[in-house]
Amino acid sequence: MLNQKNVELGKVRSSIRELFEYGKKRKAEIGEEKVFDFSIGNPSVPAPPEVRSALAEIIENTDPVELHGYTSAQGNYEVRKILADYTNKRFNTSLNADCFYMTCGAAASLTIALNALLNDGDEVIAFTPFFPEYRVFVENAGGKFITAESENRTFQINFKNLENSLTVKTKAVIINSPNNPSGVVYGADVIKRLSYTLENHYNKCGNRVYIICDEPYRELVYDRQTEVPYIMNYYHYSLVCYSYSKSLSLPGERIGYIAVDSQMPGFSDLYAAVCGAGRALGFVCAPNLFQRLIARVYDKTSDISVYKKNRDLLYASLKEYGFEAVKPDGAFYMFVKSPEPDAVAFAERAKKYELLIVAGNDFGCNGYVRISYCVNPDMLRRALPAFKALAESYK
Amino acid sequence: MLNQKNVELGKVRSSIRELFEYGKKRKAEIGEEKVFDFSIGNPSVPAPPEVRSALAEIIENTDPVELHGYTSAQGNYEVRKILADYTNKRFNTSLNADCFYMTCGAAASLTIALNALLNDGDEVIAFTPFFPEYRVFVENAGGKFITAESENRTFQINFKNLENSLTVKTKAVIINSPNNPSGVVYGADVIKRLSYTLENHYNKCGNRVYIICDEPYRELVYDRQTEVPYIMNYYHYSLVCYSYSKSLSLPGERIGYIAVDSQMPGFSDLYAAVCGAGRALGFVCAPNLFQRLIARVYDKTSDISVYKKNRDLLYASLKEYGFEAVKPDGAFYMFVKSPEPDAVAFAERAKKYELLIVAGNDFGCNGYVRISYCVNPDMLRRALPAFKALAESYK
Repeated sequence: MLNQKNVELGKVRSSIRELFEYGKKRKAEIGEEKVFDFSIGNPSVPAPPEVRSALAEIIENTDPVELHGYTSAQGNYEVRKILADYTNKRFNTSLNADCFYMTCGAAASLTIALNALLNDGDEVIAFTPFFPEYRVFVENAGGKFITAESENRTFQINFKNLENSLTVKTKAVIINSPNNPSGVVYGADVIKRLSYTLENHYNKCGNRVYIICDEPYRELVYDRQTEVPYIMNYYHYSLVCYSYSKSLSLPGERIGYIAVDSQMPGFSDLYAAVCGAGRALGFVCAPNLFQRLIARVYDKTSDISVYKKNRDLLYASLKEYGFEAVKPDGAFYMFVKSPEPDAVAFAERAKKYELLIVAGNDFGCNGYVRISYCVNPDMLRRALPAFKALAESYK
Repeated sequence: MLNQKNVELGKVRSSIRELFEYGKKRKAEIGEEKVFDFSIGNPSVPAPPEVRSALAEIIENTDPVELHGYTSAQGNYEVRKILADYTNKRFNTSLNADCFYMTCGAAASLTIALNALLNDGDEVIAFTPFFPEYRVFVENAGGKFITAESENRTFQINFKNLENSLTVKTKAVIINSPNNPSGVVYGADVIKRLSYTLENHYNKCGNRVYIICDEPYRELVYDRQTEVPYIMNYYHYSLVCYSYSKSLSLPGERIGYIAVDSQMPGFSDLYAAVCGAGRALGFVCAPNLFQRLIARVYDKTSDISVYKKNRDLLYASLKEYGFEAVKPDGAFYMFVKSPEPDAVAFAERAKKYELLIVAGNDFGCNGYVRISYCVNPDMLRRALPAFKALAESYK
């Protein structure tokens, strides 16, 4: 008798992966250029040129024993120091190198953070729509996954729903801003009210709730006025789970970090728990070469203007065709209302127009679909008539 | 209330790490060249030159979107195909690409394998002396860690002890050959008898026991006649947990794999459980660049003749000074009998001679110390008078 939960997890692909695989098959059947694949969140813009040159330079000029050797479990000290200084300068925080723990990307950041925090039966709240793997990560860490429905249409936090979801067993709230799949960003007002609500909950029942801030999309915002508040400036009981997968287009290399606020009472225990969880899950250390890379390109991003142009074109066009969507402030996803109640049926009908879009059900939100616009701009332009025809099929 | 187990794990460094940190401090006090650090298993020989040239070539000539993008969760198909073909040729197996699952190194291979197999309360047996993290990994996967004492002096499997340890709850046996910390290799006879014992256990009580074969040291054997049997040729219910950390001197880059025997009844469920466990633990995929590297250097090793010379010199010298040790057939560790019953006291006394060696207690074996001889040969030569003086202090 194997671990049945993991057998099932391994057998059932996420619906996103399922659609992605269908797309590969379909392209082989009718030709690459005839399929419009908006299924997956794989950056379409290359890493900035500094990545290639820095990698080449590091490999050429570093002693291989040092370059490829173990780093400390938390990560190379110099790298963490650079990240602390940069974060302090950028967000006016007062972190030091030992607030940072380098990880193998955002998923690792999340599983480590959850395993550091949770005891069996603890509850973790996420807001709809949410990244589906949250449920897998929370349950694997022994927790119970609780969803709180967001505001209709805006997908901002509905505080009444949050308050109703908080219990004495709530250990953490996950926020993800900019959001996958909606692209919504929480402004300072929302973050303030969230902090107030959790503080209030603590005052009422003595239960401390942590905020896990999952922010792989922090750098992907498109309008000058959009600010993504830095959680530690509002709430000390926070863990920032960061990844360079999307900002530097390095999703396959697995590099990110967890930052813990040293001003939090109980900081040293929490940081120790992060180290212990990383150890128990088998992470040892984040890849040395990519840690060194980050020390040189931490303030760079891929050319995100491509995503912005895609967003603007897609949003304007869908609106023109009669679709209803939230205009995404960030990330590279658009959440579009299904013209029929069942979004699965809508996504199925889209397939007839060779449009691959993901039904919102796995994100905890039926009635919507996710369109990933991290795609070749040319493909997007060629797909517009298909979106138009799809809209018209509902008239 | 955080997860206290992980808080403790993060606070208490392993005794190996503790000694390594002491060594760093001591070197700063009295000078690098005066401290003889045999504490840690960090390869001292650089990666073979092919690693640098292949990395440079891949970075120069691969489209960055493809190079740094996600691979499938199991790993890049071409890489897995190459590994399957190579394994088949080398060990006369009949594996295919879908028997392989690329991982972030040996620790990841082990935690994924254990989470694939174990249900809460399942027992996992390891033989003394064992790598201390086994206990951490097994317990984190919900299992109970059981140790079976090996034969005195030879550290081969004691089958009476194994039989006494097997129960209806035994889910797996971990073997590690060449062994950390003893350097002992299990020959074909031992592997045959182990397979027979587990098959016999199944016939008696219907409980199937898997073998987890942890082999980061497979390539590190020093005598032509030493063969490391390939477990799948003896027992189908096996998972091979491989890592390139030691063979290619890449411990900080985290690259390895799990291989599962497709001839095993129930193979597809087990492989699915491996995929599911990797997903639930947050691994997503092994680093893309290093997967591609492995496709080019899978049959290379660092210059292990350095370790062989170290072994020969250290073994001959310790014997001459009156120490008793198992001559290691592989890995880069020597397990030496403490001249006093308490190995911790012995290791403490060694410190007075600036010799950093690890007491065997954490490896489940008091009365012995581990000497890591993956060190600069010059340092080893300079350390010999200290070993001699240490020996004489007991006369």
